[in-house]
Amino acid sequence: MLSAAVAAAGVLLIVKNYTGDRLNFGLAAEQARNHGITVDMVIVADDCAFDRPSKAGRRGLCGTVLIHKLAGALAEEGCPLDQIVLKMTEVLKRIGTLGVGLSPCSVPGCLPSFDLPPGDMELGLGIHGEPGIKRSKVASADEVVKLMIDQMTNPDSQSHLPLKSGDSVVVCVNNLGALSCLEMGVVTRAAIICLENQGVVVARVMSGSFMTSLEMAGVSLTLVRANQETLRLFDARTTALAWPHLSNVCVTGCRYISDPPAMSTRPQDDSYSEGPLSHVMRKTLERVCFTLLEKQEELNSLDRAAGDGDCGNTHAQAARAIQEWLQDHRVPGCPGKLLSVLAGLVQEKMGGSSGALYSLFLTAAAGHVTEEQSSAAAWASAIHAGTEAMRRCGASACVGVLFICLWAIMSVDELMNLSTTPPGGQMAVLQAAVTKATLGAEGTCNLTAQAGRASYIAAERLTLPDPGAVAVAATLRAVLEVLEGQK
Amino acid sequence: MLSAAVAAAGVLLIVKNYTGDRLNFGLAAEQARNHGITVDMVIVADDCAFDRPSKAGRRGLCGTVLIHKLAGALAEEGCPLDQIVLKMTEVLKRIGTLGVGLSPCSVPGCLPSFDLPPGDMELGLGIHGEPGIKRSKVASADEVVKLMIDQMTNPDSQSHLPLKSGDSVVVCVNNLGALSCLEMGVVTRAAIICLENQGVVVARVMSGSFMTSLEMAGVSLTLVRANQETLRLFDARTTALAWPHLSNVCVTGCRYISDPPAMSTRPQDDSYSEGPLSHVMRKTLERVCFTLLEKQEELNSLDRAAGDGDCGNTHAQAARAIQEWLQDHRVPGCPGKLLSVLAGLVQEKMGGSSGALYSLFLTAAAGHVTEEQSSAAAWASAIHAGTEAMRRCGASACVGVLFICLWAIMSVDELMNLSTTPPGGQMAVLQAAVTKATLGAEGTCNLTAQAGRASYIAAERLTLPDPGAVAVAATLRAVLEVLEGQK
Repeated sequence: MLSAAVAAAGVLLIVKNYTGDRLNFGLAAEQARNHGITVDMVIVADDCAFDRPSKAGRRGLCGTVLIHKLAGALAEEGCPLDQIVLKMTEVLKRIGTLGVGLSPCSVPGCLPSFDLPPGDMELGLGIHGEPGIKRSKVASADEVVKLMIDQMTNPDSQSHLPLKSGDSVVVCVNNLGALSCLEMGVVTRAAIICLENQGVVVARVMSGSFMTSLEMAGVSLTLVRANQETLRLFDARTTALAWPHLSNVCVTGCRYISDPPAMSTRPQDDSYSEGPLSHVMRKTLERVCFTLLEKQEELNSLDRAAGDGDCGNTHAQAARAIQEWLQDHRVPGCPGKLLSVLAGLVQEKMGGSSGALYSLFLTAAAGHVTEEQSSAAAWASAIHAGTEAMRRCGASACVGVLFICLWAIMSVDELMNLSTTPPGGQMAVLQAAVTKATLGAEGTCNLTAQAGRASYIAAERLTLPDPGAVAVAATLRAVLEVLEGQK
Repeated sequence: MLSAAVAAAGVLLIVKNYTGDRLNFGLAAEQARNHGITVDMVIVADDCAFDRPSKAGRRGLCGTVLIHKLAGALAEEGCPLDQIVLKMTEVLKRIGTLGVGLSPCSVPGCLPSFDLPPGDMELGLGIHGEPGIKRSKVASADEVVKLMIDQMTNPDSQSHLPLKSGDSVVVCVNNLGALSCLEMGVVTRAAIICLENQGVVVARVMSGSFMTSLEMAGVSLTLVRANQETLRLFDARTTALAWPHLSNVCVTGCRYISDPPAMSTRPQDDSYSEGPLSHVMRKTLERVCFTLLEKQEELNSLDRAAGDGDCGNTHAQAARAIQEWLQDHRVPGCPGKLLSVLAGLVQEKMGGSSGALYSLFLTAAAGHVTEEQSSAAAWASAIHAGTEAMRRCGASACVGVLFICLWAIMSVDELMNLSTTPPGGQMAVLQAAVTKATLGAEGTCNLTAQAGRASYIAAERLTLPDPGAVAVAATLRAVLEVLEGQK
């Protein structure tokens, strides 16, 4: 065993400051020395919990992991053992750690290591579940992190880490065991912001499970006041499998917390004026919106039988978004441009799968109808493109979705005839499509859901029309009514 | 937003097979195409839960992460987009995943996603908390892993992964959120053993949190049937921060699960014969063991007042280990060799801090007394070395530990005189040391614990002698009695 660990330059034991650890590693060192091996030891005591630590000194916590990395990098560079010990002894003065637990942990087969009622947290606990310094109600991540950093850097505490504005730090956010990735992200963000608010430069951040306490829900923060050498050793490449992939770019100064750029659903380009086609399209949209708002409760009621009862609400949201847009904007003469605007509006405002689905259809269709090319044939291929886009995304697997497709497919068949039908026949075809869509919507009651939320109530037979299909039929009828009024 | 994601060769969307994901990513693809960007999509459907999947198909699970890695490595190599899609479509036929949950998760601010009584597990659930295929009592990791791999590779299931003896696999053991590192290690080991038992070559293993379901306690297993190209792409270096450090050595064939080599506490070198000194040392050890066993209950009782009440038990364990050793072995004539043997015995058999402490003392002392050099002066420096080793390890901070040190320090003072004292005075000095140790042990009642377990009951004043110190005084007295009998 011993021989495997022996390097030419000797062996460094990196030991957390617990009595048992010091004894047992001390024993290992003596045994190794009896074998003629050069051994030295660094004792890590980075705990910032106690203002007046006992004679046993500060406990060793997650700072140990950083000492492993820095000492390892030095050894890799060929630094002699005694120099590594000297340098690490100096680094140890610049490391501080504090933990907070939201739950105890249990050694397998044993009861929990301590009692902590849900909603309480224990500040300053050790990795073996030893008690901390303060128990309080759980607060927000921002508040908890502030509390931790204040305790860690409080000059009145004998175990504080001296830290002032302008200092650079390496931050290690360590999952004590059972915190979720989401929570770890929240705490890490809070730590960066809290330190930067104090003028501290956050040079590097690592966040993950580095020194855990079994399944304890909790986190520890380790801060290392960093100089050029610290960062060089921290960044040094390593083959150690437990070390994470890290960026070697200073965190402070990066735009690491960015809001997404504003969506371009409302194009600023309103320079065009409304033509006769714009007028028809505006009237059509107004009628569609009116119809969908009128049917809100009916659609909700149908949806309650098989889904989550909000189909009317989502369609009403879309309708109100379109109404609002119509108030503030000119309707472009190019139908493709209008479809793009509608695609953006329903994607942003309608929400849910319906919003994505309508938006997908409209987006794919938009490219096929322009100001120059808005013939019946162009409309037919636009609708065909929209249908194909939905098919590619597997949308035909959902019930509501299926019916929108069915409608589209029926309409495509009819509309394809438009290119060869004399102008007078267009309305008759649209009329036929409305009829088919209505019949189709009523027909959904004989279908079984094959996917989506409704598929989980497969045992019950659906006896009512699908609300999504009803909405589509109503929309089509509204379009027809307006166009008939234009004749 | 879009422009940032555009590479010269186009954009690949890697999408998990959920209706909403397909729709929304499909929509993004359509929008990007309207901007003239080359976009393609790979749908990952690796779930092996359902024997007869619904029309929506198999869900996308943690296999997605591997597709990201393999496709990313191909892109890095300059592979054209259409080729990447072809290759990934082929790899997808060789990927299977199955999850098991031990607890539900909760979307922040919401109730748990499903009900799962403690002690139950749900096999085959999805990452959004959708129900699985079977609920049962939690079994051992070996049993659960076997159940998972059987389901994943069952040819009767339409969503199985074909796998036969001789195949090579990459294994991804994915923490669904709140499993401890210890549990992850247990499951990972179980998966490797289970696969190897079926003749499958485990080429690579990754274990960690790659696709989590918030704070769900659970794990998923992903298997990829791997060929040379899969391994090349898997091993390819990446700057992606979420990808772990991994070894590129085949796991099967490595001695990854090794029992520690047998401890060398019982040296096989028994070729020496017992001399007159051996005889005295054997008698002394026998008396010490007898004394410690006799005092077992007294020491336990003293320890219950301040510690965990097992001080007598640990000393009795040491005594029985020494008795057993004496039965089977010759006592070496070299005192240093005997001290080394005793050091190994108490380290292995006594346990706890006491075992480490005695062992530390004996190990450090052993080098100073040899067959040639066992004068009183040599013994004095041996004891001094043992004391110093304890001091270096900070042992003086513990109460029981402190008293062993005090004894040693007193004895060193006395024993140092031995080198200048005429031979007749040796026994008088040992007598004096026993008296001081006994007085010292009684004196512990006036001390307050400064560290270790006993320091946490600081509020109560300790009114009884320290059991560790009592044991040391009794040991010394036993030595004295035997040596006096030899005169």
